[in-house]
Amino acid sequence: MDLNEKIKFFINKGFFYESQSIYGSRSGFYDYGSLGTLLKRRYENLWRIYFGKLFDNIYEIQPSEIMHKNTFVASRHLELFNDPIVECKNGHRFRADKLIEEKLNIKAESLTIEEMNKIFDEEKVVCPECGSKLSDVKLFNLMFPIYVGPVYDLFLILEELKRKYGFLIKKYRKISEKELNYIIKNYLKNKKLYSINLNNEKYIFDENKEIIIKIKDNEYYVYPENIEIKEENENYLEKLNNAEEIKVDYELYDLIKNYIELKNNEMFLRPETAQGPYVNFPIEIIINRYRLPLGLYVIGKAFRNEISPRNALLRMREFTQAELQIFFDYYNNPFENEFEFYKDKYINVLLVKDRDKKLPYVEKSLEEIYNETKIDKFYLYFLYKVYEFYINILKIPKERIRFYQLADNEKSFYNMYHFDIEIYLDEIGWTEVGGIHFRVLRFNRDIINKVDEEIRKDVENLFIGNEIYVGYDLWNHFILSKDRRFILTRPNGSKFIPVELELSFGVDRNIFSLLLINYDGRILKLPDYLSPIQIAVFPLLENNENMVKVAKEIYNKLRKRFDVYYDDSGRIGIRYKRQDEIGTFYCITVDDQTLKDNTVTVRFRDTKEQIRININDLEKFFEEKFDIWKIL
Amino acid sequence: MDLNEKIKFFINKGFFYESQSIYGSRSGFYDYGSLGTLLKRRYENLWRIYFGKLFDNIYEIQPSEIMHKNTFVASRHLELFNDPIVECKNGHRFRADKLIEEKLNIKAESLTIEEMNKIFDEEKVVCPECGSKLSDVKLFNLMFPIYVGPVYDLFLILEELKRKYGFLIKKYRKISEKELNYIIKNYLKNKKLYSINLNNEKYIFDENKEIIIKIKDNEYYVYPENIEIKEENENYLEKLNNAEEIKVDYELYDLIKNYIELKNNEMFLRPETAQGPYVNFPIEIIINRYRLPLGLYVIGKAFRNEISPRNALLRMREFTQAELQIFFDYYNNPFENEFEFYKDKYINVLLVKDRDKKLPYVEKSLEEIYNETKIDKFYLYFLYKVYEFYINILKIPKERIRFYQLADNEKSFYNMYHFDIEIYLDEIGWTEVGGIHFRVLRFNRDIINKVDEEIRKDVENLFIGNEIYVGYDLWNHFILSKDRRFILTRPNGSKFIPVELELSFGVDRNIFSLLLINYDGRILKLPDYLSPIQIAVFPLLENNENMVKVAKEIYNKLRKRFDVYYDDSGRIGIRYKRQDEIGTFYCITVDDQTLKDNTVTVRFRDTKEQIRININDLEKFFEEKFDIWKIL
Repeated sequence: MDLNEKIKFFINKGFFYESQSIYGSRSGFYDYGSLGTLLKRRYENLWRIYFGKLFDNIYEIQPSEIMHKNTFVASRHLELFNDPIVECKNGHRFRADKLIEEKLNIKAESLTIEEMNKIFDEEKVVCPECGSKLSDVKLFNLMFPIYVGPVYDLFLILEELKRKYGFLIKKYRKISEKELNYIIKNYLKNKKLYSINLNNEKYIFDENKEIIIKIKDNEYYVYPENIEIKEENENYLEKLNNAEEIKVDYELYDLIKNYIELKNNEMFLRPETAQGPYVNFPIEIIINRYRLPLGLYVIGKAFRNEISPRNALLRMREFTQAELQIFFDYYNNPFENEFEFYKDKYINVLLVKDRDKKLPYVEKSLEEIYNETKIDKFYLYFLYKVYEFYINILKIPKERIRFYQLADNEKSFYNMYHFDIEIYLDEIGWTEVGGIHFRVLRFNRDIINKVDEEIRKDVENLFIGNEIYVGYDLWNHFILSKDRRFILTRPNGSKFIPVELELSFGVDRNIFSLLLINYDGRILKLPDYLSPIQIAVFPLLENNENMVKVAKEIYNKLRKRFDVYYDDSGRIGIRYKRQDEIGTFYCITVDDQTLKDNTVTVRFRDTKEQIRININDLEKFFEEKFDIWKIL
Repeated sequence: MDLNEKIKFFINKGFFYESQSIYGSRSGFYDYGSLGTLLKRRYENLWRIYFGKLFDNIYEIQPSEIMHKNTFVASRHLELFNDPIVECKNGHRFRADKLIEEKLNIKAESLTIEEMNKIFDEEKVVCPECGSKLSDVKLFNLMFPIYVGPVYDLFLILEELKRKYGFLIKKYRKISEKELNYIIKNYLKNKKLYSINLNNEKYIFDENKEIIIKIKDNEYYVYPENIEIKEENENYLEKLNNAEEIKVDYELYDLIKNYIELKNNEMFLRPETAQGPYVNFPIEIIINRYRLPLGLYVIGKAFRNEISPRNALLRMREFTQAELQIFFDYYNNPFENEFEFYKDKYINVLLVKDRDKKLPYVEKSLEEIYNETKIDKFYLYFLYKVYEFYINILKIPKERIRFYQLADNEKSFYNMYHFDIEIYLDEIGWTEVGGIHFRVLRFNRDIINKVDEEIRKDVENLFIGNEIYVGYDLWNHFILSKDRRFILTRPNGSKFIPVELELSFGVDRNIFSLLLINYDGRILKLPDYLSPIQIAVFPLLENNENMVKVAKEIYNKLRKRFDVYYDDSGRIGIRYKRQDEIGTFYCITVDDQTLKDNTVTVRFRDTKEQIRININDLEKFFEEKFDIWKIL
């Protein structure tokens, strides 16, 4: 089965589907259907239990998805969260780096704008869609702006613009001079006409803009397209010369003025969930009585105006993240000790230094990685904890998971250390599903000269020797907001701003990987605690009233506590198959013997093994099977 | 304790707080903090278990929050989901209906625009902020538009507008003619100047717009405000007359053109979660093998650009809804039978016909309501199921809950029947926390003449006798999208489009009500299964090493499965108090006797009763206490 066949299968079964397909959809938006939502909830609950209990003092919070502009000034998303794009005169737009990679097979991710421009120029790259010339590379910010009322009403302004200048985008039909004469004679002769001159276009219309003539490069066009047109030999063109020219009016400036004010007051849909914990840190650290380390996590939506969404759930414009932000004192760090317990554990990594070995990954112990890279030990400890989640909880085969180290010019702008979590998908290759991000700044004393006079004294107090490590985001929010609560006090009285470690997971990418890896075209081999439907209940024979009655009783009893599916249509083999392919681990069948001894068969999905259980013991049996706290 | 004191308490404890307060916040946005998120999750899980199992064949789905424009054309939100507003020339904006109610004490919710204009005119209402004249009443759509790339890049366009026309909103300083002469002499004399004429303003500037002179009503202004200014007696004004006038340029039209295209391609943040199930109905009904009734529910964010957000979580711009959409065949409706089992049950209602009795509500049986109103029986059955949820699960006192019937001119535009679910809050009064909405249209055969030729044949098939009941939204989506999958077939071969009943809950309003009702200034008396922290663990004496050790062992064992708080600081009475006020139901204390016989005290929040339990039995004890399936 190839990728498209699998995607089609998941869509047909209701795991996910294109959002609002009845209206033709827009790319980059998928909805989770009835089965997919069950799977997603199970994933999120497992994540909560595993990462939310990773150490003491971790809390989930739910910050707003619409966030303040200053938040992204501080995080520098407004300035740096851009994709480089090129466009042609016909409006086709492309990621500049991807285009270079595809057309010229050159690694382009870390090229500067200037370097990309030079390549486009030298290699004479044209628009892949229409062959026309491409613009210079521009930056395109990936955040969606939001305009929050009451004063700034984009909607009304746009309506007004459309009303006044909508003629610019109407559909015109090309006509001959004789046809134009016919139109003037029959429709316009007795009307007062107006004109607007643009660069190389002239528009002439009556007061209500019911009929519009466009003249461009000495060609004639008319709107509406479906107007009755014949040929007229007499010349009426002079009428057009009498049109009164409209100069741009003052209201237009007012509209523009409104736009600019609106621009100054915009908010944004968050492009990552991380900023919520950062801006709320000064509140939550007080609520939680100044205890460190402190973990704050968010499971929720994030939004990016991706240039080219693709691969179903892999790159969407609206997606779900699960991100844990861990705040601690870099110089007083309990996780350094944890490393000692795990230093002999092996994980699959691809370090920058090993990339030219052409291996997919190298298995190394944490200690070996430490000796080779000198990456802080606490960071390696967390790599291992993430690894455990994938191996032990999600049951991803070991050879399909690796940590991919990013080089200095590849890392996200906020990271000191950056490893991607990658899963190998047969249909796609190594795929990023998350990352472990040490968002930290290391400053020497020079920084004092760069900060605002007002906060200089606070900053001077932070140094240990000649340097400090501070959280990238906490530092930036502290500088911009001047909120002193970002500064904490150690037991010895010295001051510090915590550092931040982010464990970041793309929930949809994880779900999509679980589906692709576990579906073999016949069975969806998810672990029982992840399967969307937990139990199916069948009467062996659909038209045996007694069997149906008992099966429904079992179903009704179990469905209160579990996600259960009742099915009595079709041969029993078909019914098992239907459950196998959506991953249901346990199928209960009521048969002849049930009516005699009150036992049913419970069939196990992967082994096809069947055991008999008394109906009265079913609830307890499944309670134990699905007690995820015992699994973890 | 008044409302503000309570809100302050909840903020301090981390239930919720203003979003991004370090940047001054924007009204209408709140974040759930560490305690509030726990409470919200518990509420949502209870809701899921209760409403998600209300009948067989109910599924949760997760549709996108950003939705297609056509979705809101069909639902008519684009046309009708407006607030009437008035504004003054200084940009102050108000809800027109609320302003009339506040100023004149006239019920205004159901007035037409014309009626409101007339009242404003006759009563000479002026701006409450600045006393200036108010505009005519306009409609303000409450949806947030979203512009999805790659072609339509609001951001770049706005940047460009700001670069070119930003001078319009700069801050100017008023100056005298002599001061103007000084500025021209010292800064502008040798520069080439340009001018732009607006309605009653003229702007004159140099090429880089470093210095801008504004002339308005024969007064002079200069930008920047902090420029050095002296007086100059010699006259240099003539220099200004030489400025070259800039006419509006062609690029501006291109920008406007871009805007209009953008307008045509906009999407919207959903103003309710309901549309997700409606547009996905044709997919989910197939996935679920055409079984009716079908329930599809969404728990998720919705967004409204409220003119005046207020009362913390009660009216926000970003909020959480839990909405169940129930699809069924109006003429073949299993819920009619359910009514029979419940017809003698009493609920608190305020019917339109009883409103003038000046009672807060009247207790009536379902049967009485049926006899008085002839509202469909299935609808009354669901009223009762909602009532049960509030009384039995959320434990809202009976006298605090009522169903408030809306009159024809008060109902939401999509509803045939509409009762609000209201809770009485001492601090606020009766407060809408949800609604039961029969979103349905009843057509006679005339409708056939109003539909598209192409679908006329489909529609003709739908009639039973001379009328049909169809779901308001399903019908509209069917008409607009022409997707035939909205039409289902009965066993007897006849065709129908299902009707829709919506059970709609404002999650934040429910949470806020639970907090206000249950907090008495000392104890937050939530039911144990709703309390954010489930168990607290204390050593009786914080400096007794053995007690601390045992308490930590208990804590570490229980925290895997439960939400547990460990506290060893301060007197034990203070620690109990701290837990009482955030609602923790069970406090475990390790004392002297524990060290002898391995038992601890478990204290019950409301009765202060203490029992002794063996440490080894704690897990099982709490597993039973918190088994919500047994509660329901």
